[in-house]
Amino acid sequence: MTEPFDAVDVIAAKRDGRELDTARIRWLVDAFTRGAVADEQMSAWAMAVLLNGMDRREIRDLTLAMIDSGERMTFTGLPKPTVDKHSTGGVGDKITLPLAPLVAAFDVAVPQLSGRGLGHTGGTLDKLESIPGWRADLAPDALRTQLADVGAAICAAGADLAPADKRLYALRDTTGTVEAIPLIASSIMSKKIAEGTAALVLDVKFGSGAFLPQRGRAEELARTMVELGGDAGVATVALLTDMSVPLGLTAGNAIEVEESVEVLAGGGPADVRELTVALAREMLTLAGRPDADVEAALDDGRAMDRWRRMIRAQGGDPEAPLPVARESHQVLADRDGVLVEQDARAVGVAAWRLGAGRARQGDPVQHGAGVRLHAKPGDPVRAGQPLATLLTDDADRIPRAVEALAGAHRIAASGSQVPERPLIAARIA
Amino acid sequence: MTEPFDAVDVIAAKRDGRELDTARIRWLVDAFTRGAVADEQMSAWAMAVLLNGMDRREIRDLTLAMIDSGERMTFTGLPKPTVDKHSTGGVGDKITLPLAPLVAAFDVAVPQLSGRGLGHTGGTLDKLESIPGWRADLAPDALRTQLADVGAAICAAGADLAPADKRLYALRDTTGTVEAIPLIASSIMSKKIAEGTAALVLDVKFGSGAFLPQRGRAEELARTMVELGGDAGVATVALLTDMSVPLGLTAGNAIEVEESVEVLAGGGPADVRELTVALAREMLTLAGRPDADVEAALDDGRAMDRWRRMIRAQGGDPEAPLPVARESHQVLADRDGVLVEQDARAVGVAAWRLGAGRARQGDPVQHGAGVRLHAKPGDPVRAGQPLATLLTDDADRIPRAVEALAGAHRIAASGSQVPERPLIAARIA
Repeated sequence: MTEPFDAVDVIAAKRDGRELDTARIRWLVDAFTRGAVADEQMSAWAMAVLLNGMDRREIRDLTLAMIDSGERMTFTGLPKPTVDKHSTGGVGDKITLPLAPLVAAFDVAVPQLSGRGLGHTGGTLDKLESIPGWRADLAPDALRTQLADVGAAICAAGADLAPADKRLYALRDTTGTVEAIPLIASSIMSKKIAEGTAALVLDVKFGSGAFLPQRGRAEELARTMVELGGDAGVATVALLTDMSVPLGLTAGNAIEVEESVEVLAGGGPADVRELTVALAREMLTLAGRPDADVEAALDDGRAMDRWRRMIRAQGGDPEAPLPVARESHQVLADRDGVLVEQDARAVGVAAWRLGAGRARQGDPVQHGAGVRLHAKPGDPVRAGQPLATLLTDDADRIPRAVEALAGAHRIAASGSQVPERPLIAARIA
Repeated sequence: MTEPFDAVDVIAAKRDGRELDTARIRWLVDAFTRGAVADEQMSAWAMAVLLNGMDRREIRDLTLAMIDSGERMTFTGLPKPTVDKHSTGGVGDKITLPLAPLVAAFDVAVPQLSGRGLGHTGGTLDKLESIPGWRADLAPDALRTQLADVGAAICAAGADLAPADKRLYALRDTTGTVEAIPLIASSIMSKKIAEGTAALVLDVKFGSGAFLPQRGRAEELARTMVELGGDAGVATVALLTDMSVPLGLTAGNAIEVEESVEVLAGGGPADVRELTVALAREMLTLAGRPDADVEAALDDGRAMDRWRRMIRAQGGDPEAPLPVARESHQVLADRDGVLVEQDARAVGVAAWRLGAGRARQGDPVQHGAGVRLHAKPGDPVRAGQPLATLLTDDADRIPRAVEALAGAHRIAASGSQVPERPLIAARIA
């Protein structure tokens, strides 16, 4: 096959800061999928995109080309509106677990196609897999039936969804090109648009535990994705949220499920409930239910009921005891005072080192591993009081997790000011 | 083996505009050579270097690491000084052919380890291989003997010389990262330093037929290489020369040998002689022979004598007739006037399309193919007079070569001003 363009010319154009037209972008993605553009060419191009950027039209073209590299799902026959949520990932971010059944309780379909965690922020599927019997894989027909019936489904994205993006993502991961906003935006949005949702709420995080710590960069990503959603016909809203402190009191797998169930029972940590409610309201507004009483559904058991049905529909036993780590170790406060800082990234790295996350694709995770926190910024603490419990099946993982946590907690004299950090920093629509 | 550094961290550092320390640069080159850093990682890094640059210390470290990836030759036992020349390549640039024997005539050793041509600028070995019997491969011992005896040797660089650079160069060629000055400089200089020459003269070209057409960029490359040579203990001088017009009246293989022999016989086109003489003077000055009468050696047959010995030492017959192309086609002037422009790049592309160059590594070249020019800028021309003769073994290559030459020659009214273009624009030491 004679190629209509030359890969070196396309790379050089982006390298020299020129715009790529639609035909070249579509060709590049298609040729990469076919193997006519090699990995080393695509990674050089990705670095040029990272350093020289892409404009709105280029990003849209790239996203549509990624979608067209695979299957596109559609839920048009479903007797209820569809809406989905995507988070850019954070430490203790279990929000999808209570959120999907909560929104489904208002007769809205939530097709949550998720990935597995790599690195310190964990993966939704890994958390749910700590529930005995629960299976992440759902065939398209079973997904549709579950959405019609239960309304919520959290399952593994099939390999047919934006396969070019999967290949490019794997390449970016090893070539220092993950942080390119046009590539992050098209990667997230191509999968979400291909998944067939009519509306989308984004939780874009900033702060030490986020993948883009700088607020300005996170905001740029959020705006890019909101524009991209609109350009592709998917109503999209983003909340910009603070990830400098872990969400809730748990970072791991089974312990995050446990905390999610507390929220579904009307309790749980205030920040987890706050973000779940805020995201649910955005989703329900986009789905045409702006007046839904979200808090009531958490408090009266409707959300919990959907959760149980959702877990059972995928083979899980919502009443079964969750896995518990074999070893534990407490990290103690070394002085009296008030906790003023709890670094999300350090907690995430500790959980990851304890076995809650994986170092490479395909590695197993420990379902019981993670970090349980006993205080949040603003809480008074006493010397010798536990600040965190480290959980793992391997005692020899503990020292490096303790090391990761060194300096994560800052205790100031009683009465000290705790930095004001609204969890939801902005709404971008 | 546990690696001391992480490739993604090293790529990200350069991506973010940070300096790489010596340990990281040495590790990167070594790990790339061992295959522990993958092609896609190295190409992303190369793009980051292209866009963010390297400082003098980093370029020196990179060059020394490239050298250390392979063998380093040494001519310390040789009873005469060594000096070499490198050209960044141009259309009709056959200067190495008369230059090496000319310098050798003054009891100086010229170890010219050359590459083959890719693209429109041709390769010195390809030109010499048009001489019946001549062989490019010389074992290290044979090279040493030839240098001791004849003084000049032009031969293929062995695979053991800076192998990391060879791999990186192949990668850059397909990933749009050829034009990075730190990588060009370290690529050229690592091979020249590894080859063991004590001194080096660089011919760095600018203009349409050069690989860096902009004069400012060529000058930056020249300065970078002169500094690098000094830092590595190789006395280095550069001439910055104009490649907007082809050198001499021939661009091809056998026809360039023929023109070189004319220069060695005391004749030949003025520009080829001028550059040969200027480079020879620089080389001889670095070799401790500042008073050598270079022009006399061209005029009295001493240089020609060395040429014959050099060709015979590598199996060639300097008296044998050279290959002649089977087909030819004349390009005629379409009006009377004065030739004011002759675009080097267009002539190079035409020669390449006629079969004088190769599209990919390993392809054969046609020894008789090329472009013979019949006028130079400044010459008066008459309508219908031949401006160029296209030579090839395949008549069907002619139309695309004619196309390449369209617009290459500009004829202005008689008496028009011809742009002043000194061949040697600057000397950088």
